[in-house]
Amino acid sequence: MTHSQTNHAQVNRTTPSSELAKIMAHPESFRLLYFPVEAQGQTSRDLLTYGGANWESASPQNWLEEKDKTPFGCLPVLFINKGDKQVVISETHAVENYLAKHFGLMGDNDYEETMIRAFYCSSVSLFSNFQASVVWNMPEVREKTLAGFKSRQLAHWVKTHERHLLENGNNGHYIGNKMSLADIRTVNLIRHFSFQPYGAELMEIISQAPALIKLRETVESDPKMHQWKNSDEAKKLADSSKAFFANPFAATGKPTA
Amino acid sequence: MTHSQTNHAQVNRTTPSSELAKIMAHPESFRLLYFPVEAQGQTSRDLLTYGGANWESASPQNWLEEKDKTPFGCLPVLFINKGDKQVVISETHAVENYLAKHFGLMGDNDYEETMIRAFYCSSVSLFSNFQASVVWNMPEVREKTLAGFKSRQLAHWVKTHERHLLENGNNGHYIGNKMSLADIRTVNLIRHFSFQPYGAELMEIISQAPALIKLRETVESDPKMHQWKNSDEAKKLADSSKAFFANPFAATGKPTA
Repeated sequence: MTHSQTNHAQVNRTTPSSELAKIMAHPESFRLLYFPVEAQGQTSRDLLTYGGANWESASPQNWLEEKDKTPFGCLPVLFINKGDKQVVISETHAVENYLAKHFGLMGDNDYEETMIRAFYCSSVSLFSNFQASVVWNMPEVREKTLAGFKSRQLAHWVKTHERHLLENGNNGHYIGNKMSLADIRTVNLIRHFSFQPYGAELMEIISQAPALIKLRETVESDPKMHQWKNSDEAKKLADSSKAFFANPFAATGKPTA
Repeated sequence: MTHSQTNHAQVNRTTPSSELAKIMAHPESFRLLYFPVEAQGQTSRDLLTYGGANWESASPQNWLEEKDKTPFGCLPVLFINKGDKQVVISETHAVENYLAKHFGLMGDNDYEETMIRAFYCSSVSLFSNFQASVVWNMPEVREKTLAGFKSRQLAHWVKTHERHLLENGNNGHYIGNKMSLADIRTVNLIRHFSFQPYGAELMEIISQAPALIKLRETVESDPKMHQWKNSDEAKKLADSSKAFFANPFAATGKPTA
């Protein structure tokens, strides 16, 4: 049985949840299954990197065959290993919340955690809205929906986040003076925009928000993140993200809606 | 100062986050600000109801004026009160995560919490996708995107969730034999579909998934939830949700994208 043939039913259900929680609390290694692009997988990769985890990256060999064997028919899937035991978790936000909490990136108390989740969800929502209303929308309306996205959703998000970052002292972080899940997710949202064929238009809007730019520089200049972002693997992921989003319908063979 | 004129900067920043966390841990009462429809506010209302909280509901009087005074320029906003102190939190998922955790609806350990978050996020993602690709999409493509949504995203979500619910013993819950945030969010997603002008088509697909129907019945027949769902206020919210989504563009005066 390979990792990618594992689903919750096979692995998780035979063990009491309290035992699975113990594996999650003291993991020895991780394996992250995701497509060979940044998109919804990159924040998990960054969290594993920032946390100094023992982890490996994997991509599906034949996604259409493997899809139904994953817990939700979607990626990323995270395999959490301890000795001969394993826990499998899925759904982007569940995976990212677990990793962020495990590596101390959810703040120092419940108020900070809630605020981090608020900024995080605001960026996640903008990503989802962008994917559905622009990237995967019908080609005949994409020009109009892109214009609407830029003038409304993106402009509003930039204004709101810029204000919060300035209120926090423009120190490159959303909460206090330390790295959090929200910092990393927002940087990946900005990177995602930069990979689009019309990315220059989106980045032009973001470039007018110096505190957001400072946030990106702060996250990307963290020593572990800097090393990872400059690795051959990370550069390849950035290149293949650009190539994928140049024509996502062609890449997936999906019908155009 | 009315509640709706409060933002994070005014209220939260003058108090150390550890003090704000204490207010959140021992709240005396809540006020939830949201539009007078179900949509993104109903899960918070249900959580407050299920938790037996002392809470009141409020709606903006003039949203365009009040918008910039909220933390993210969006609703719901939750005001958490203890004596003369108050914490203001916003962004749907951050509010819902806090309330669910506070009222014991996030499972018994980190594994259960992660699984609850996975099911929850899967339902939240489907909601977001539906809003962006169908409800708020350009009218000229809505028929096509609705067809695509039904045959792909909705069908896939129903299949995946039905399988998990059956694996959990078809007991009306996602995890173990107790109510969770995921149960409540999924029921509100199904209700949201039922409010759409083409709701019958969507409900026809869901009606073929008996474990999802069982989940809805279980949540809605909980004594506190049953009483709340049958109150005049809740019935009015359901009616106004239907009325709103009959023509959402007309209701908001938004341009059609």
